[in-house]
Amino acid sequence: MKDLRRCLIGVAAGFFIFNLVFIPALNAEEKVNSKPFGIVIHGGAGYMQKERMPAEKDQQYRRKLEEALRAGYAILEKGGSSLDAVETAVRILEDCPLFNAGKGAVFTSAGTNELDSSIMEGKGLKAGAAAGIKHIQNPISLARLVMERSGHVMLTGEGAETFAKEMGIPLVEEKYFFTEERWKSLQEEQKREKEAAQKKDDENSNKCGTVGAAALDKEGNLAAGTSTGGMTNKKYGRVGDSPIIGAGTYANNRTCAVSSTGYGEYFIRLAAAYDISALMEYKGLSLEAAASLVMEKINRLGGYGGVIAIDSNGKIAMPFTTGGMFRGYLGNDGKIVIKIYKDE
Amino acid sequence: MKDLRRCLIGVAAGFFIFNLVFIPALNAEEKVNSKPFGIVIHGGAGYMQKERMPAEKDQQYRRKLEEALRAGYAILEKGGSSLDAVETAVRILEDCPLFNAGKGAVFTSAGTNELDSSIMEGKGLKAGAAAGIKHIQNPISLARLVMERSGHVMLTGEGAETFAKEMGIPLVEEKYFFTEERWKSLQEEQKREKEAAQKKDDENSNKCGTVGAAALDKEGNLAAGTSTGGMTNKKYGRVGDSPIIGAGTYANNRTCAVSSTGYGEYFIRLAAAYDISALMEYKGLSLEAAASLVMEKINRLGGYGGVIAIDSNGKIAMPFTTGGMFRGYLGNDGKIVIKIYKDE
Repeated sequence: MKDLRRCLIGVAAGFFIFNLVFIPALNAEEKVNSKPFGIVIHGGAGYMQKERMPAEKDQQYRRKLEEALRAGYAILEKGGSSLDAVETAVRILEDCPLFNAGKGAVFTSAGTNELDSSIMEGKGLKAGAAAGIKHIQNPISLARLVMERSGHVMLTGEGAETFAKEMGIPLVEEKYFFTEERWKSLQEEQKREKEAAQKKDDENSNKCGTVGAAALDKEGNLAAGTSTGGMTNKKYGRVGDSPIIGAGTYANNRTCAVSSTGYGEYFIRLAAAYDISALMEYKGLSLEAAASLVMEKINRLGGYGGVIAIDSNGKIAMPFTTGGMFRGYLGNDGKIVIKIYKDE
Repeated sequence: MKDLRRCLIGVAAGFFIFNLVFIPALNAEEKVNSKPFGIVIHGGAGYMQKERMPAEKDQQYRRKLEEALRAGYAILEKGGSSLDAVETAVRILEDCPLFNAGKGAVFTSAGTNELDSSIMEGKGLKAGAAAGIKHIQNPISLARLVMERSGHVMLTGEGAETFAKEMGIPLVEEKYFFTEERWKSLQEEQKREKEAAQKKDDENSNKCGTVGAAALDKEGNLAAGTSTGGMTNKKYGRVGDSPIIGAGTYANNRTCAVSSTGYGEYFIRLAAAYDISALMEYKGLSLEAAASLVMEKINRLGGYGGVIAIDSNGKIAMPFTTGGMFRGYLGNDGKIVIKIYKDE
């Protein structure tokens, strides 16, 4: 009898504990899983063609894009922030010499590397950017520090690096950014420039390589970030759209998060990244329609490039006007998509 | 009889010639006059108060604003371009030590002067900007050269000055920008910063002084330009909204031309100048409603400042959230309006 009572109490207690601990946990997990989240990235738009890309290099690009996507996704899946996901994904691309950002930055006409970056979060519309930096291994992380710690949005040149130093970011030597391939590109570009005026439809994809990411986290917060080495052989401290909030990067929880790549001047003149947000907010366009319309505008004006974007429901858009764009996404259905060329 | 015939022929010929020559001329003149045109300018938004402004200084500001307006207007009246009108008006304000742009630029924390500017035209959406320049007397003219001659939109620092030199713009020595008043402002600001954290509602109007102009010409072309010395005591190569197309300056013939002044970081985060254009184009708002809504957004986010804007019909808007804004306009009715404080 005593045993039976003990047993019943044990069962009741067990049932109680089960209800107390597991059912809410299951519910919570179900609830969290039902919330859309995802990440989309790019490694630059350009005139890459399948038939001219060595198979091994094609695979290297895809592997690195997958690594960046999975790293960002892992953060989102665990309930981490879209800002962390974006920063992490962009850092991976910055550290890879294949892309024109961080380690793989192209050379200016003076033979130096000058990097630009920006980041924005869509909840409070906070943003940070750094332009013309020469000694920062991961410009995207400096942009985030500018956003969170500087009281400003955009810092440039030596001043930006002084700030980085004060924040404890180690400065790297300029030679860190030296890669044989980019150096050759500079020589070729300078030779070509001597021979002829620059052609718009130049096949040299180094001209507009850039990396970027946009993400939606389980809290419904959007974020986007962009990082670049600029244009091969660029002169005069030229700044493109990458560090320009509204042109290269934008995020607003009410609409979407966007990162641009391409002929930056056109993206600035059209306030391209913000324009996608404005078309959604003011005209009620879908993300896909808004992003495509902005790329049409870029095209009509004589520019080229692409954008990646994610909206507050986790929908993805990746329109571009060039022969290809290194791109991919991973949403909460867990299916990864990675593409390079137009016709895939 | 012969005399009568001669007389009649003379009258008929006279009438014919009158019709042929004068009536089309009158019509043409009427037609030209009926085309709206106009110019609106600002000399910065800030916390200026009537009771604290010496009467003589109040008059100096008004006289200079009038000079700039009349110079821009004269160009428009003769059928000149809005770009010329904007550049001319801004140059006059840049040359005057009263305003925080050109000659009167404030000092950075390092005791230097670093100037930013931008310009845009609304027909082809061409734009130019220069940031962090130290040796250019009229930054607005450099921005225009960047737009017309560089193939880029934004040049920064020494690179921008190398380009200026190649374009034949003489570099001035840094001491050109030394003004006793701005130097004192720096000392005061640095003292204040030591004593306490910066207050948002600081009465020091040097914080957001900037100059700008927007104009509509008889051809229906809009243009806008902005020029600034930045924030007193600014650090780290900070760049505000003035050289950012979409934030500090925007122009589109379909909508309006805008120049911003104020706490630049907020104008960047909201893509403020472009947002006014987007609200008109996508939501059908009037210039006045669009400009006021954007200033409301700036205010809600915690920022402050103002904008001047003119639309494709010559309508003017000059909303601001601060105690005052040096501002004025002159349209084709020929009536000049110049204001400083909120309540006038």
